[in-house]
Amino acid sequence: MFKRTSGILKDLGITRPTLVILEVRARANIRRLAHRAAACGVTLRPHFKTHQSEVVAGWFADAGIDRITVSSVGMADRFAAAGWMDITIAFLVNPLEMPRIKALAAGLTAGGGRLGVTIDSVAAAAALASAGAGGVDVWLKIDTGYGRTGIAWDDQALLREVAAAGAGPVRGLLTHSGHSYHVLGRPALREIWDRTAARMRAARDALALDGLLLSVGDTPTCSVVDDYSGVDEIRPGNFVFYDLMQLRIGSCGANDLAAAVACPVVGLYPRRNQAVIHGGAVHLSRESLREDDGLIFGRIGLLGPEPILEGARVTSLSQEHGIVTFADGRFPAPGELGIGDLLLVWPVHSCLAADLLVNRPDPSVAVIR
Amino acid sequence: MFKRTSGILKDLGITRPTLVILEVRARANIRRLAHRAAACGVTLRPHFKTHQSEVVAGWFADAGIDRITVSSVGMADRFAAAGWMDITIAFLVNPLEMPRIKALAAGLTAGGGRLGVTIDSVAAAAALASAGAGGVDVWLKIDTGYGRTGIAWDDQALLREVAAAGAGPVRGLLTHSGHSYHVLGRPALREIWDRTAARMRAARDALALDGLLLSVGDTPTCSVVDDYSGVDEIRPGNFVFYDLMQLRIGSCGANDLAAAVACPVVGLYPRRNQAVIHGGAVHLSRESLREDDGLIFGRIGLLGPEPILEGARVTSLSQEHGIVTFADGRFPAPGELGIGDLLLVWPVHSCLAADLLVNRPDPSVAVIR
Repeated sequence: MFKRTSGILKDLGITRPTLVILEVRARANIRRLAHRAAACGVTLRPHFKTHQSEVVAGWFADAGIDRITVSSVGMADRFAAAGWMDITIAFLVNPLEMPRIKALAAGLTAGGGRLGVTIDSVAAAAALASAGAGGVDVWLKIDTGYGRTGIAWDDQALLREVAAAGAGPVRGLLTHSGHSYHVLGRPALREIWDRTAARMRAARDALALDGLLLSVGDTPTCSVVDDYSGVDEIRPGNFVFYDLMQLRIGSCGANDLAAAVACPVVGLYPRRNQAVIHGGAVHLSRESLREDDGLIFGRIGLLGPEPILEGARVTSLSQEHGIVTFADGRFPAPGELGIGDLLLVWPVHSCLAADLLVNRPDPSVAVIR
Repeated sequence: MFKRTSGILKDLGITRPTLVILEVRARANIRRLAHRAAACGVTLRPHFKTHQSEVVAGWFADAGIDRITVSSVGMADRFAAAGWMDITIAFLVNPLEMPRIKALAAGLTAGGGRLGVTIDSVAAAAALASAGAGGVDVWLKIDTGYGRTGIAWDDQALLREVAAAGAGPVRGLLTHSGHSYHVLGRPALREIWDRTAARMRAARDALALDGLLLSVGDTPTCSVVDDYSGVDEIRPGNFVFYDLMQLRIGSCGANDLAAAVACPVVGLYPRRNQAVIHGGAVHLSRESLREDDGLIFGRIGLLGPEPILEGARVTSLSQEHGIVTFADGRFPAPGELGIGDLLLVWPVHSCLAADLLVNRPDPSVAVIR
């Protein structure tokens, strides 16, 4: 089973740690959410920070997507250069980047596109106003319970103050319910969705401005909710690839996993049931999941009907090395796995693994069709 | 105090998350180990994975260093292209990369340089032999207690078998005592050094080959041992920058920290004693340290006599966001810290932060002289 997967990966020309994207699955993940959003009359504005790839971006375009979300001005610049015309930067405005934001907005609006930015403070509104960033869509960032950024959904005084601080007309309210990553199972996720949507509507009602849109988005809730109505836009990103964290949360199944990291085997240590791979923190990231007997940094993938190999886990990562520990009795028999074979590792957090392998001077990405 | 540090960083033109290298400190860190190694007649072959920077490489050259260590073939290619002629790849040979290794060795040896590679298996020796990678220096990787890769130091049968497996003459034995990262304090580190050196000598004696060199290296032990004699070469890397992990271990002081990440402040939340910065897992890495009340991902740095601000810690990271939590009563007073100011964050693991910010299509690095 190792040899078959390794052989397929070698046939792709892989020799070093490489992001392997399973196209059929990724396209299915895209279509599923695009159809569901369209059926509800809600805009799907996917977050492109997950893949940062023009190839994957093309699969979204094939599914009819023309509005996107990014998490930095640099990422917005890259996708604007690739032809995307309607971009929301779902990261609070950094006043030091106003010249880049202005230039980007000017370019997009001149071509009939739009640029959205998010703020949650009078200071950021003032920075936008004083920079004269006309034509930018201003979104107010709302905290519906995550507690990272945003105006508390029920802080009506601050909502009104920021809306009136001169940044220009407010296009809508935007939130990210990142606390959906801290629960397990569909009922808990649906509850977060419902509460988020209700709080966003309450904040909109309190502001009482005309035509405000509501934008929400996180992969866990958007994956398990069937009816998005009640908001105008969803912005999940991770769903294109999913990963072990989503599997743990319960927002996907093992057959939805669409991005793994191919890692060369460089050491075999049967006495301690371990193999060492070229695949470390600079390829998989140090994101981990706690299991009963410790942290894991990945699981071993197989190309076939059983996507996750039981009894094998990435249990340690240093900068370039990963240690794969096999359960007792599961260490590959002689000849089953050799030095120079490729193992496929499902990452804990696919966004970070993709960033590490795509966003490099020498990107290392392969697509399985 | 925030405004002074922020002002210095802004004067460098920083507008986004940026690796800030303190040149005076980094050069002092380099000189300290270079002098100590020279005094003992031991070669310092620093590990360049920590900085991956040609600028920092130049500071090593200024200190008389002309032999280096890297952790991948790609990194070896880059530094060879920059003129470094004596390179050891301290990562096990990956047979899939033999064509690149051969080409690199041919280039270096044609110019009078040398390329070292490491193996710990008959399979890797056979791959080298069958590729006809002549002129490569073969180092046997030894496990002196870390338990990641290498032939167990006392496994004389395997040592002899790999040495005789046809990869060519063995230049020496090489180990990395990474378990030095799991202890605290100088006495424990010195004990690891002594045990490592003794085990390496025992392995060499058992092999009984002529002229074998001994290469050891990890920043914690090399930072606290005064006399390196008994081995031929040391290969620490992190010492050029150090970081919070080294500070915890006890291998450096706060005034030795030489690399931080400048992060724009994008949100201020006085009610929960938190600020949000543009500085996340893709800038600082998810490497963490456990403190009494949870994990931390960084501390706040100040440019001045007190390099670490007490009562402020990076307590949460997502892809692009970091949350800085201030202790009760330590939240900056109005006017002390604003949106659009820059905070300096000492990373937990400087090698990973540097990799994330240097090894990018759009590197983001600044040097303070």
